[in-house]
Amino acid sequence: MWPKRISILGVGLLGGSIGLAARKFLSACEIVGYGHRPATLQAALARGAVDTVESNAAAAVAGADLVILCTPVGLFDRIIQEISPVLSATAVVTDVGSTKRSVVELAGKHLEHPERFVGSHPMAGGEVRGVEFARADLFQEAVCITTPIAQTDTQVLAKVEQFWGKLGLRLTRLSPQDHDRLIGEISHVPHAVAAALVAMQDDAALPLCGKGFLDATRIAAGDGGLWRDIFMDNQDNLRVGIGRLMGELSQLLARMENGDAEKVMAWLDAAAARRAALVKSK
Amino acid sequence: MWPKRISILGVGLLGGSIGLAARKFLSACEIVGYGHRPATLQAALARGAVDTVESNAAAAVAGADLVILCTPVGLFDRIIQEISPVLSATAVVTDVGSTKRSVVELAGKHLEHPERFVGSHPMAGGEVRGVEFARADLFQEAVCITTPIAQTDTQVLAKVEQFWGKLGLRLTRLSPQDHDRLIGEISHVPHAVAAALVAMQDDAALPLCGKGFLDATRIAAGDGGLWRDIFMDNQDNLRVGIGRLMGELSQLLARMENGDAEKVMAWLDAAAARRAALVKSK
Repeated sequence: MWPKRISILGVGLLGGSIGLAARKFLSACEIVGYGHRPATLQAALARGAVDTVESNAAAAVAGADLVILCTPVGLFDRIIQEISPVLSATAVVTDVGSTKRSVVELAGKHLEHPERFVGSHPMAGGEVRGVEFARADLFQEAVCITTPIAQTDTQVLAKVEQFWGKLGLRLTRLSPQDHDRLIGEISHVPHAVAAALVAMQDDAALPLCGKGFLDATRIAAGDGGLWRDIFMDNQDNLRVGIGRLMGELSQLLARMENGDAEKVMAWLDAAAARRAALVKSK
Repeated sequence: MWPKRISILGVGLLGGSIGLAARKFLSACEIVGYGHRPATLQAALARGAVDTVESNAAAAVAGADLVILCTPVGLFDRIIQEISPVLSATAVVTDVGSTKRSVVELAGKHLEHPERFVGSHPMAGGEVRGVEFARADLFQEAVCITTPIAQTDTQVLAKVEQFWGKLGLRLTRLSPQDHDRLIGEISHVPHAVAAALVAMQDDAALPLCGKGFLDATRIAAGDGGLWRDIFMDNQDNLRVGIGRLMGELSQLLARMENGDAEKVMAWLDAAAARRAALVKSK
């Protein structure tokens, strides 16, 4: 059975949950965890998310037939270069990053067998971070986007998709470009907006907030370092998406200024209906 | 005991919940409901939210010692003019609207005893509408803002605040101007932004949405007509607030363009910390 040895590079919420889920849903395999903080590695061991730990990425991938990059995306460049000389020729490499163009490009540039790399984005996790929140069922019913390119080995793609499927994820495929554009819209722009909604408030307004505001800004509770990397990496799409959001809001303000109350209502009703259809489809 | 007869003008979610809560938390009093749709009035009777119903606002306030405007704010002008000639000289009048400058102004203009009017904003309700969702405990632990002005009778203010307090609300006072500015920021801007986040999406992005997007846009599920009235009425504050939001987002984009990743992270971390402190204070 494949994989026999999984190397998880970065044992936080996602990496730790992959370890726990692999144990629960896959036939027996060895799980090696890499991280740069000893306390994190000890916590991953204590949680039972990994069998052994390494504080050196190259050592952690030696002999692995599946390598999964689970660090913040800003570290992918360094880590891919570190593991590249040591990877087995038959190893399959994937990742869990929230952006996909850059990691696919890095794999093409630095890996000896870029055709054995498949970009993955399992969309699970939320605002908490750290292996202490890891759960074997984190991925149940969540969507995983894979981003194969023309050079990707189709058997490798099938293996990676099967792996995520066993962990409970529903699979869909996009090009790295489409991924970054669409996820920029549906995830990165909302995150930036949530942070801006918190940042813009008067101190005097905060005590008046209701459940609606807390819901609307929940995603802003996410880890700043993780999101800095995502924002910097997907900057162009974030710019286009924020521009579109501003366009919607400018149009709203123009309609209000023109006293066009019925168009304001139609816009609000259309958004409510679109969201209701989305909730229903879930 | 006061009040002996409550007139609820508009028996939707808020009006209906006031009726149910008054029954549960106040000593016996008669509750009259006004609405323009017979089906709504029947539903309010069936729920036990009101004792009797009237399809004419003037008839509904006759003999009432407490009158509460619970229709969408866009109807306040007409209703205040309708009830003004019929109100008892000792009646106390309040409302539950999400904007306060306009209703305070209308009361001053049309009521014979504007000193017996107190603007109120019980912040409860959420996205659902209709008396079928009314609950006696809707107001428990929610905030109610009252907006007295210099002319307001202090005994009337005390009575209104006591009334809301018995229904479970925590009271705070603001001027009508401060109310509209602060609630514009913490409630109306987030609502506009949530609708814009839904409106801006590609059809192809929607199936990729996660729980974060659904949370961030939940407030956009609210009733379009209700929110059209609020937006049109609080247009100036909405404009200033959206301008500030756009300022935050423009600054983010500028920092990204300058490659200033550390400032991006500091901004994200500050927003996350501010929100965490807010959650803790609740």
